[in-house]
Amino acid sequence: MRVSMYDSTLRDGAQGENMNFSVQDKIAITKALDEIGIDFIEAGNPFSNPKDKEFFEASKSLELSHSKIVAFGSTRRVGTDVREDKSVNVMAEVPCEYVAIFGKSWDLHATKILNTTLEENLNMIYDTIKYLTEKGKYVFFDAEHFFDGYKNNPEYAMQTLKTAERAGAKSIALCDTNGGCFPHEIEKIVKEVCKVVSCEVGIHCHNDSGCAVANTISAVIGGASSVQGTFIGIGERCGNTCLSTVIPNLQLKMGFDVIPESSMKKLTSYARYIAELSNITLSDGLSYVGKSAFAHKGGMHIDGVSKLSKSFEHIDPSQVGNERQFLLSEVSGRTAILSKIKAFLPDIEKGSPVLADVLEMLKIQEQNGFQYEAADASFELLVKRFLGLLKPFFHIEFFKVITEPEGDRKSPACAMVKVKVSDKCKMAADEGNGPVNALDKAIRNALAEYYPDVLSHINLIDYKVRVVDTASATAAAVRVLIESTDGQNVWTTVGASTDIINASVKALVDSIEYKLMKVQEKQKVPAD
Amino acid sequence: MRVSMYDSTLRDGAQGENMNFSVQDKIAITKALDEIGIDFIEAGNPFSNPKDKEFFEASKSLELSHSKIVAFGSTRRVGTDVREDKSVNVMAEVPCEYVAIFGKSWDLHATKILNTTLEENLNMIYDTIKYLTEKGKYVFFDAEHFFDGYKNNPEYAMQTLKTAERAGAKSIALCDTNGGCFPHEIEKIVKEVCKVVSCEVGIHCHNDSGCAVANTISAVIGGASSVQGTFIGIGERCGNTCLSTVIPNLQLKMGFDVIPESSMKKLTSYARYIAELSNITLSDGLSYVGKSAFAHKGGMHIDGVSKLSKSFEHIDPSQVGNERQFLLSEVSGRTAILSKIKAFLPDIEKGSPVLADVLEMLKIQEQNGFQYEAADASFELLVKRFLGLLKPFFHIEFFKVITEPEGDRKSPACAMVKVKVSDKCKMAADEGNGPVNALDKAIRNALAEYYPDVLSHINLIDYKVRVVDTASATAAAVRVLIESTDGQNVWTTVGASTDIINASVKALVDSIEYKLMKVQEKQKVPAD
Repeated sequence: MRVSMYDSTLRDGAQGENMNFSVQDKIAITKALDEIGIDFIEAGNPFSNPKDKEFFEASKSLELSHSKIVAFGSTRRVGTDVREDKSVNVMAEVPCEYVAIFGKSWDLHATKILNTTLEENLNMIYDTIKYLTEKGKYVFFDAEHFFDGYKNNPEYAMQTLKTAERAGAKSIALCDTNGGCFPHEIEKIVKEVCKVVSCEVGIHCHNDSGCAVANTISAVIGGASSVQGTFIGIGERCGNTCLSTVIPNLQLKMGFDVIPESSMKKLTSYARYIAELSNITLSDGLSYVGKSAFAHKGGMHIDGVSKLSKSFEHIDPSQVGNERQFLLSEVSGRTAILSKIKAFLPDIEKGSPVLADVLEMLKIQEQNGFQYEAADASFELLVKRFLGLLKPFFHIEFFKVITEPEGDRKSPACAMVKVKVSDKCKMAADEGNGPVNALDKAIRNALAEYYPDVLSHINLIDYKVRVVDTASATAAAVRVLIESTDGQNVWTTVGASTDIINASVKALVDSIEYKLMKVQEKQKVPAD
Repeated sequence: MRVSMYDSTLRDGAQGENMNFSVQDKIAITKALDEIGIDFIEAGNPFSNPKDKEFFEASKSLELSHSKIVAFGSTRRVGTDVREDKSVNVMAEVPCEYVAIFGKSWDLHATKILNTTLEENLNMIYDTIKYLTEKGKYVFFDAEHFFDGYKNNPEYAMQTLKTAERAGAKSIALCDTNGGCFPHEIEKIVKEVCKVVSCEVGIHCHNDSGCAVANTISAVIGGASSVQGTFIGIGERCGNTCLSTVIPNLQLKMGFDVIPESSMKKLTSYARYIAELSNITLSDGLSYVGKSAFAHKGGMHIDGVSKLSKSFEHIDPSQVGNERQFLLSEVSGRTAILSKIKAFLPDIEKGSPVLADVLEMLKIQEQNGFQYEAADASFELLVKRFLGLLKPFFHIEFFKVITEPEGDRKSPACAMVKVKVSDKCKMAADEGNGPVNALDKAIRNALAEYYPDVLSHINLIDYKVRVVDTASATAAAVRVLIESTDGQNVWTTVGASTDIINASVKALVDSIEYKLMKVQEKQKVPAD
């Protein structure tokens, strides 16, 4: 049986503390969710947020192979004519067919928060959905606080659903907005709803009782066939249902049809990629996709797993693209990496001794704080350098950066750098808004005469910093991710060090080298 | 109805990745769990681990007011005489009355992992429990892999329980060792067990399907009256059932009697204290006790909660000693800011002209890249400084940081700083793993003689960097968030600048000033 997935990373997820997506981030996440095979992507509220509006404009040129983009908005305001309601009209004009409209299902919210009558609340739901349906939209109705509402006044809560259905809603999501419910309640209530409503029923849970995943499973058992959540569980307060946990629960254990099997095997790398884009650290213990999800420490467990993997593992980690780890013996076999290497070195084989060496080297790099999940360009450079397939285009002989307090001066930072290209050395300097900017400019100045055409086309479009081992705070290793573009292609590079400047330099050098390599592969550029 | 709590932080929790408790840590955690009112504390395996043995010796002089300490060990080995089994005899001699013995309930484990017969496995369970009971021990039997065993061979799984009970076990914990079960399965199977077993039935879950908490709740509904877990959810792979989530679920929502009400109101601070002792950062979104568990960002939610707290909160945060937070973001308005200010300036009113000035000033700060939604400490300092209620404790006159490539030298970065306290200036320097670490140390060195007691108690526990306007990459403004602790409280400060070093300095200065302000508010510290 099919259960559809509805991801709200870009809308409800963005309500999480510290969450802040740029339009670029939103596009990258949308593409990733599409690749995974997520059915619907709730991408934001084009009425309340100008950045979301910009995204919906940009989304027109996105070519997605599977996912449908959904715009999120509310019912009309109390006492207005729907045809003149600004927010509803924004939804009517948004350049996507699918819209989600949330409305109140808890009588207390209608009377105490909206300060209106129960009847007007029903009218608001009806008018809005009817209007948007007539405008050709496919409408999801998000029944906010449905479960709390049902517990307080089941008859009224049901009425809100029936009203939405009558107005033309194609799918109704039952929301545990406050996240306080338990599975046994959810299953029972969803069953009641399924007796009354004939359109698709969805479930939207939050994790305030620590039961979001289980509540979602119970709703599916009760009859829901659309699951809302966020791919890595981010969201307001304690977060939303984590889809990267629900998906394997439903598909691998309960036999539902959710995403293509090929995506299931990449679940872990997608989760890590989306975490990188969200600039958060995935919890090590996150079910299925966390770094420690299949990490065994107890001697008995290691012994057991070595004899028979299912003795201490609920699934085979490769089913979700994760890896078994033995924490004491540090034995890891990374077959998943092979496919990444094959993308640029198609001849490499699973049994090849070269692969073992590459894996060993990667492990050392990761211990030093590097992470290649989101840094394909650095990964390709690393492997090619390691195998002797790439000579450096330049070498940084030395740099010195001086930072002082910002004040009246224009630049609080300046940098000097000495680069070597073939046998020639060149020194250059520049100032900048900060030490990394000063270094970036100084490196480009030094290289300008050697690679003028190439360098003038590279722009850095994103710069992210992550502390790797947060326990030691300012003395911890940091990882820097730099996203660059030449206007056509976008590539990401990584650097790590206990020193943020040194980490940045590594990522900057990789960014330039990657572009030079790509140009060389096409045109023959003078290399060392 | 009473449900007893059995905490295994020091045993199963210690199996988590990166977990490593000293004997001192173990004692401190034991005392905390006792204060909370946890019934049983599983403290380790005195046979397999010398550190645990040392703990059990030390525990003799511990005076606990409520908790009982439990030693953990296994059944006798295959084919041995129990009276001569070393591990069992260690358990017989351990200086505590309570012991937990784990044994196999999954037929596959007996035959494939222990390589023995199903009958011998039953004998191992019987002999061990009988022997220890005769030695005067109160024996818990941990039925390892009970649920997987029951699914494979229900009759045999039940036989292992009946054998344990017949041998004298006082309590039988049903373990979902691989963590892969779902609530509906657990409830059904626990009900079957309760029909057959007359002693206490317990539940021990892992979070590999993301359902540990829900599975535990379902087991209690099914008839279990003893709950095993770890207070903050640490443990092998994806962790154990998180007791700080289960306890309020059972007591506040389902009416069970679990811990004293006075402890419930300190649940959050206990969770943070145990996280400190475990040297891990509690997930912000952890249910009930996480920093963001009651943090509201959406304007509608803030408005709703202000009108009626239960409109967007499943419980009142004060019931578990946590706090409501209104995250200040582009979306949040005057109400959110007012309630934040009221926390430290209770007299301020909604119509006050001061409030309008504060809002205006905040807007300018946000344009400069500051964000106060996660930085309460900087927010309080900002407002108090703006209103002239706080004089600076020190002033940074000047600093200079020099960064060079990392290489063979120990420190790629060094910093000099000149601070002014009252009328005196002091210069100091230090080196560090990176420029921020060097500056942090130099500032502390310079302030050491003025505020020695205070500074030595501050630790930085997290350091986050965010690029504010990603479009301009390395020339963009960066925002730095620093989380600090004095062991009891945690506070977050923010700094922003186009220069990461300057941004970090602002956040570092705020972190120190905040602590000095809090000390002054209590004790009178010399201020400028």
